Amino acid sequence: MSRLGVVLLSGGLDSTTVAAMARSEDYRLLALTIDYNQRHRIELDRAAAVAERLGAERHIVLPLDLRGFGGSALTSDTAVPKDGVMPGIPVTYVPARNTIFLSVALGWAEAVGARDLFIGVNALDYSGYPDCRPEFIAGFERLAELATKAGVEGEAFRVHTPLAAMTKGDIVRAALAVDAPIELTWSCYDPTPAGTPCGECDSCRLRAKGFAEAGVADPALP
Amino acid sequence: MSRLGVVLLSGGLDSTTVAAMARSEDYRLLALTIDYNQRHRIELDRAAAVAERLGAERHIVLPLDLRGFGGSALTSDTAVPKDGVMPGIPVTYVPARNTIFLSVALGWAEAVGARDLFIGVNALDYSGYPDCRPEFIAGFERLAELATKAGVEGEAFRVHTPLAAMTKGDIVRAALAVDAPIELTWSCYDPTPAGTPCGECDSCRLRAKGFAEAGVADPALP
Repeated sequence: MSRLGVVLLSGGLDSTTVAAMARSEDYRLLALTIDYNQRHRIELDRAAAVAERLGAERHIVLPLDLRGFGGSALTSDTAVPKDGVMPGIPVTYVPARNTIFLSVALGWAEAVGARDLFIGVNALDYSGYPDCRPEFIAGFERLAELATKAGVEGEAFRVHTPLAAMTKGDIVRAALAVDAPIELTWSCYDPTPAGTPCGECDSCRLRAKGFAEAGVADPALP
Repeated sequence: MSRLGVVLLSGGLDSTTVAAMARSEDYRLLALTIDYNQRHRIELDRAAAVAERLGAERHIVLPLDLRGFGGSALTSDTAVPKDGVMPGIPVTYVPARNTIFLSVALGWAEAVGARDLFIGVNALDYSGYPDCRPEFIAGFERLAELATKAGVEGEAFRVHTPLAAMTKGDIVRAALAVDAPIELTWSCYDPTPAGTPCGECDSCRLRAKGFAEAGVADPALP
């Protein structure tokens, strides 16, 4: 019998690729999308379309409004930078975002008996977020054992990060290999009024780099 | 200048005592209440009253609906047990609750430059929850260093658990010592239709035990 996997699905290229990879490994998908009142709400619709296309057993969109906390260009009115990918941790960093998202995924996983979490973090082209690093993921796995009834009873949770060591080009190639519905995905942090990607934010730049490296056209572009 | 502290405030006896202890140590309070669609929603009103009484600089009530996940008598229609405190992890355990709550608190703390979190966990009379144990708290502090921009830059977050080694009697005595507004607090998991504590759930029993040990009457009882 195939296992249940809780997949954090934003509707972007990375998480969609991870979900398709989990499906290709015969996991039954529980897709979790966090609606943290992000600027790029179009992601939420894309996440729903991706979950349906991939045959997820359930898709939960969980409202979790981090806007009241401030502290990030993605959840406040701070301008999204457009000057290219810079060294260091950018203003689009959302404090503790992946810790929060993985904790919620852990709660769902434990409630339904799943032991596998999937998240599309990437440590190479990772935009400089601390909570995308392998040491953070390993730390979260250790915490999950201390935090849960299942962990206390000797069961381990595993956080799968199949994109961790990939370049964006690798990710595009992996997406094609597992037939991920790339055309449904959305990456831009700052859509134009017409609802098209801005082409200038870090996320647009990284995405474009990936398709260029893989030598294919981006099927989500108009 | 006094420091900012993010206090997880449920409106119960323990978290209210912790908040009052933080205030007595001259922390400026940021009170965070998670509305996880719990059965005992009366807690939320009490939390607001406590935050106001203690002079919190801000009180955020964050809706975070864990009901869709199931897995606990506190967030589903499973009966709340009334047969007394039993060994082992009870059905009122909410999967990964404190991991989720502390992660959200961490996000707020990092966004506003706070490095101190406060939570009313208790490892003695703790109802058997894994995420109330000191080893879990220490694990979360380690994760916070890996998870955050502040942590990467060498700053530590501290999770204060002043009740960790206290009996319920100790907690009542501590509450009186720091002038915590006990009379505003609510502990019952399963209020009667009349809006009074059931007197029979684990939480009511532990609370009654505390006041009995401290030799004082519970000012919140009718």
